[in-house]
Amino acid sequence: MKKASIVSIGNELLSGQTVDTNAAHLSRELLAIGMPVASSYTVADEIAVIVRALNLAGGDADIILATGGLGPTDDDLTRQAFAEFLGAELQMHEELLQKMQGFFARRNLQMPEKNRIQAYIPAGAKALPNNRGTAPGIIAEADTKVFVAMPGVPSEMKQMFAESVLPKLRQLIPDQAVVVRKLRCCGAGESIIAEMLGELMQRGRNPLINCTPESGIVTLHIIATAGSGDEAQQLVENSEKLLRNVLGDLVYGTDGQTLADVVGLELARRGKTIALAESCTGGLLAKLLTDASGASKYFTHGWVTYSNKAKIGEIGVPADLIEKHGAVSEAVARAMARGAREKACADYAIGITGTAGPSGGTEQKPVGLVYICVDSNDESQVRRCQLSGDRGSVRRRTAQTALNLLRLQLPH
Amino acid sequence: MKKASIVSIGNELLSGQTVDTNAAHLSRELLAIGMPVASSYTVADEIAVIVRALNLAGGDADIILATGGLGPTDDDLTRQAFAEFLGAELQMHEELLQKMQGFFARRNLQMPEKNRIQAYIPAGAKALPNNRGTAPGIIAEADTKVFVAMPGVPSEMKQMFAESVLPKLRQLIPDQAVVVRKLRCCGAGESIIAEMLGELMQRGRNPLINCTPESGIVTLHIIATAGSGDEAQQLVENSEKLLRNVLGDLVYGTDGQTLADVVGLELARRGKTIALAESCTGGLLAKLLTDASGASKYFTHGWVTYSNKAKIGEIGVPADLIEKHGAVSEAVARAMARGAREKACADYAIGITGTAGPSGGTEQKPVGLVYICVDSNDESQVRRCQLSGDRGSVRRRTAQTALNLLRLQLPH
Repeated sequence: MKKASIVSIGNELLSGQTVDTNAAHLSRELLAIGMPVASSYTVADEIAVIVRALNLAGGDADIILATGGLGPTDDDLTRQAFAEFLGAELQMHEELLQKMQGFFARRNLQMPEKNRIQAYIPAGAKALPNNRGTAPGIIAEADTKVFVAMPGVPSEMKQMFAESVLPKLRQLIPDQAVVVRKLRCCGAGESIIAEMLGELMQRGRNPLINCTPESGIVTLHIIATAGSGDEAQQLVENSEKLLRNVLGDLVYGTDGQTLADVVGLELARRGKTIALAESCTGGLLAKLLTDASGASKYFTHGWVTYSNKAKIGEIGVPADLIEKHGAVSEAVARAMARGAREKACADYAIGITGTAGPSGGTEQKPVGLVYICVDSNDESQVRRCQLSGDRGSVRRRTAQTALNLLRLQLPH
Repeated sequence: MKKASIVSIGNELLSGQTVDTNAAHLSRELLAIGMPVASSYTVADEIAVIVRALNLAGGDADIILATGGLGPTDDDLTRQAFAEFLGAELQMHEELLQKMQGFFARRNLQMPEKNRIQAYIPAGAKALPNNRGTAPGIIAEADTKVFVAMPGVPSEMKQMFAESVLPKLRQLIPDQAVVVRKLRCCGAGESIIAEMLGELMQRGRNPLINCTPESGIVTLHIIATAGSGDEAQQLVENSEKLLRNVLGDLVYGTDGQTLADVVGLELARRGKTIALAESCTGGLLAKLLTDASGASKYFTHGWVTYSNKAKIGEIGVPADLIEKHGAVSEAVARAMARGAREKACADYAIGITGTAGPSGGTEQKPVGLVYICVDSNDESQVRRCQLSGDRGSVRRRTAQTALNLLRLQLPH
């Protein structure tokens, strides 16, 4: 089985200023093609230590993936270290220079002189295109092993890896296949889901079931290994059926799907529209719903009615309702959703009011108290939640809970 | 100068299921006491590879901090690896066993047999107390170097490090202090800022200046080392003055401040209010502005006018303006901002219209084209941006650019 090793390069990683998310992303991607990561090294921006790490990684694995240190500044030394490691000179590539100049020209900028260095690649190595930034990657073969250098900026690295590196790696791996499927769940915590699944989650089983929680979403990773892709696929599908049977409508989607994706797809499929009236989430729910391209098919109007005046003036919440029940109340959540739905002429609307904290809580209405109303022509459901955690966490969980309520309220 | 090296142990780190935040936490803590981290290794739960990593780390540094692999299950092998590395037998410590039994007894649980292994420590090494879990840590000296093993659970590791390890490390380091200050910049890219700073960013200088870009924000880390905290503080302050002189109003804040924090503080200080009318950012700008607690002081009304109907009906954008110029146009951005400001009776308003992609672009109005208007009683400024990157990146950069325009438009 071919193995990989990861070399993360950058002083900011060793000084703790930046958490290395690249290594975890690469590890997941590699696992999904059946190429385990044997080791991972984090080193400073120094030629000698980068070269040493490449040697160590080359001793551990067949594929060595380095990230970071390809920028234009003087402390970016991965290019030089690759040249030294490969025993090759850096050569200027005219076409890379032109591409880079185009990158700046499109932004009406003059290319800074510093960026020229990014057009240099060690002799015998090849450049990998960077469609999101100026730094090309590097790929080289040495002693039957493949060495790759990619930028440290996560968005640039991810795209380069997916478009230029992964296809090459797929050619290198033998007939062992790993298929990973993620089941995304909302509505119960990690330990409840683990209890429901019982021995299905035992270690050493194939497929292996892993579980990671984040902001109210629990992701189950089904990881199947077999002699062929078809076999592994079959294992995953059987396991998925089993899990779905046990978990029912806690499962909202698969793989990279967010709750907003799924809710958006369901609305679009039914030709239904939604409006939003947010207070404590302050636009977060609208942001999540419009993360998906094409959201304009089902989302037209959103209000961030952060003040009482906005609630009253824009979506017609009666002032005396606020006076009587307080802005954070079931009645106001209902009036917000109803008002937004009517004003937008939408099929559904969500109204959210609460106290995200850290300040603003009272004994009767503590921080974390949130009312969410999902309103439609047929019904108006309110959920009262008492959430814990910091402001960001309360807001994220509120938005996810609202999306989940809407999902469950949509007719099946 | 004493150096440290970090060894992170765990299959879950190499499979990408868990992002290693322990290494970054330790790095920051060590940097703050003037002990730079020379290298960091991530290895699997295997005795031989853990021993090899301890040897490598011992070659790089004086203090070796390992995390992970101290749990009670069969794949937790750090204890055994430490024993092998130190050439010592594992010895049962009765007092550790009793403490552990107490841990379970307080929870009305019987201690599982599996946990007994956690009472074993290599001969000659000492146990470090764990006040949050069952696994004690290990500290040992070998060849004038200090080797430490801590649990992988972040909360347990952090407490053990702070209470038992840090005080020991402080005794080992000379009277040296490190002070770190971050300067946060918006309005120019990394390479332009590096060119402006020139030799100030040279390696080996004190303070050292590092630079990390993210979503249109460039963070400069000023890292000063000196014989005393006061001296290091003075170095940082002098350096900060110098950088601010060169960079002018590109610098918007310090340390953890976001652009939204700074803009919010400035609005609150002046007693001014802001309203938002967003199209392509879909609520993201409102979300950023309300990430800060207390945003209700300056933010009252936000509209996510995702459809033309919403632009016309809610904030009074003239329908013929949209017909004539298109929804993505300078005129519509201006009308959105003006309409939102008037409707909310706010001092400032931001109007945003654009095409975040990936679909929806045309030849004349390609994906990434965005108009941002910042409107006030005194002036109405529009910025036309042609942004690259995916939908998320276009939206993030648009929101940051809008906040930056507002920041620069606020009277100084």
